[in-house]
Amino acid sequence: MQAAAAAVHRPHLLGACPGAGGAGRARRPSSTVRMALREDGPSVAIVGATGAVGQEFLRVISSRGFPYRSLRLLASERSAGKRLPFEGQEYTVQDLAAPGAFDGVDIALFSAGGGVSRAHAPAAVASGAVVVDNSSAFRMDPEVPLVIPEVNPEAMAHVRLGKGAIVANPNCSTIICLMAATPLHRHAKVVRMVVSTYQAASGAGAAAMEELKLQTQEVLAGKAPTCNIFSQQYAFNIFSHNAPIVENGYNEEEMKMVKETRKIWNDKDVKVTATCIRVPVMRAHAESVNLQFEKPLDEDTAREILRAAEGVTIIDDRASNRFPTPLEVSDKDDVAVGRIRQDLSQDDNKGLDIFVCGDQIRKGAALNAVQIAEMLLK
Amino acid sequence: MQAAAAAVHRPHLLGACPGAGGAGRARRPSSTVRMALREDGPSVAIVGATGAVGQEFLRVISSRGFPYRSLRLLASERSAGKRLPFEGQEYTVQDLAAPGAFDGVDIALFSAGGGVSRAHAPAAVASGAVVVDNSSAFRMDPEVPLVIPEVNPEAMAHVRLGKGAIVANPNCSTIICLMAATPLHRHAKVVRMVVSTYQAASGAGAAAMEELKLQTQEVLAGKAPTCNIFSQQYAFNIFSHNAPIVENGYNEEEMKMVKETRKIWNDKDVKVTATCIRVPVMRAHAESVNLQFEKPLDEDTAREILRAAEGVTIIDDRASNRFPTPLEVSDKDDVAVGRIRQDLSQDDNKGLDIFVCGDQIRKGAALNAVQIAEMLLK
Repeated sequence: MQAAAAAVHRPHLLGACPGAGGAGRARRPSSTVRMALREDGPSVAIVGATGAVGQEFLRVISSRGFPYRSLRLLASERSAGKRLPFEGQEYTVQDLAAPGAFDGVDIALFSAGGGVSRAHAPAAVASGAVVVDNSSAFRMDPEVPLVIPEVNPEAMAHVRLGKGAIVANPNCSTIICLMAATPLHRHAKVVRMVVSTYQAASGAGAAAMEELKLQTQEVLAGKAPTCNIFSQQYAFNIFSHNAPIVENGYNEEEMKMVKETRKIWNDKDVKVTATCIRVPVMRAHAESVNLQFEKPLDEDTAREILRAAEGVTIIDDRASNRFPTPLEVSDKDDVAVGRIRQDLSQDDNKGLDIFVCGDQIRKGAALNAVQIAEMLLK
Repeated sequence: MQAAAAAVHRPHLLGACPGAGGAGRARRPSSTVRMALREDGPSVAIVGATGAVGQEFLRVISSRGFPYRSLRLLASERSAGKRLPFEGQEYTVQDLAAPGAFDGVDIALFSAGGGVSRAHAPAAVASGAVVVDNSSAFRMDPEVPLVIPEVNPEAMAHVRLGKGAIVANPNCSTIICLMAATPLHRHAKVVRMVVSTYQAASGAGAAAMEELKLQTQEVLAGKAPTCNIFSQQYAFNIFSHNAPIVENGYNEEEMKMVKETRKIWNDKDVKVTATCIRVPVMRAHAESVNLQFEKPLDEDTAREILRAAEGVTIIDDRASNRFPTPLEVSDKDDVAVGRIRQDLSQDDNKGLDIFVCGDQIRKGAALNAVQIAEMLLK
């Protein structure tokens, strides 16, 4: 998995396009990376350390100077024994199912799928760790806070280091949408939201990113595309998100947006519909979001609100037709918002259309989880 | 342009994915192509014969056995003199600005941009031709019918062969959307529609398709992408549609959907908002459409209505997660509809979400224009 993730890190597959201005906060350049191994930091475990998000956990910890007294890299038995370098040290990946795997761990960052979280998070909690879980396993558990630090930090006010607990990281599409929608919601109250997504390969893991690249090469060479991760051609194509469809006809990805928004906003009445689509992009999602407000909100005020919002960058240059793109936000912390305009189909300034892009692996997963962990240190 | 269009006709760039069932009506296999050159047919001119849509006009005329007494291929002075084979004959492209270019022409199919239509359609009309214009030049002219034959054939009831007139072909995104929305609108009256598009390269012409292919090759080789047609990287990226932004913050592509829907449905009150996005796909558009109805419409009834709709194919297999994709509808006549579901965010069964795909060059342009021409022969 690690090799696969590294292989797709070609500059133009993931980086900003030539001539584009810098948007969002870039990862700090390596010259300013602070060594974060220090005695007063917590003991940290990373579960799923060899996956795309696990690897990004390490990059984010390093770039933000997240302090740690010790670091334990955990993965399935299959990856145990693998050696990974990090900040000048070499770590041996350990089997997360081994007895005592979580002994002495203060914070455990999980990103190894819902099954692994369900099986092993309870053991981590029992040994006193705070689990920050990137899977969907506990998100809708009423006892588990579901947190975007810029949006609802109050939901985890009762969670303390040293007392076992789980904090859930929301779904990537929800995080990216709500980073932009929440500041507007606070001002004018969103009553209904219609979302259509443009989702990257990374949401299905490093192997999916590699499959998109391989398929594209095959198709350009006139060959049939290899379909292992997805059931259909992804290169030069888009398709309905591969999550299973539930009884009401929505897929699980869409229902996450519906349900998680209600929980994060603590608003059972907010109406959300979503259509989730995969597009052949590597690691950043885009979302077209139509908002319906209780109170009037004009687009200039909306722009001011978003300009002041933490973790949000505005890219909205109508004259030069420059707006957020997945490539431009790749490897960036901030969610980018543009195409901010009064919705013609709603009266009295009670509607807005916006277009949002965010790095799926970073703010959509690893960064948000590390930010949750940072709140535990305050 | 012709060479460029031909170069991207690799099977997996444009064709259906392996194992996918046949959806929609495919182009008739070549064994059943009827020679359409016959004495009782009209005299036909094709303006922009060397472009992507112009070439598709020829393919559609051939596959549908559209009758013609004579065929004149017209293009700019730059392409004049070029020789193009068609149905066993060779035609010399003629300069559309030459005196008498439209003499004796009964039907002129225009697809060479708004400027060419504005400059030369009046001459064609003056010489007695019915112009079917694929550009946006005359679409909002109150004297010019804007027609999707399955949707509003009545709008051109007064147009007769032998009497000069213009009939406008709607914008591709509008055609594809309304092919699916109109049958539902007839049943329950659409009061508001929120559309997000996933638009292919072909809408910007054959050179744009070629640029997407070239950029993809470059990016896979670690090179900087060539940006001639678009101002930014298209390979492994998506971006807001390149049409100019108008004063209200919408781009012209989006405003076409807003205004053309009102004209085609002859309903000044229907509320439409759209966000138009380009995705790295060759020749078919997709659209996520949220519908709000005046009267209740449950999803089973909607499915029945769409099943009976002319020019519409349903692909909506929830169990196997199989829904319309741009690849699957490429080179097909029908628009495909799926993800048909009751919108959770609207009460009383007054909302539906659907996902629509259609071939941009075919039903979005050439096929619709030839269907309009066919109506003149009835």
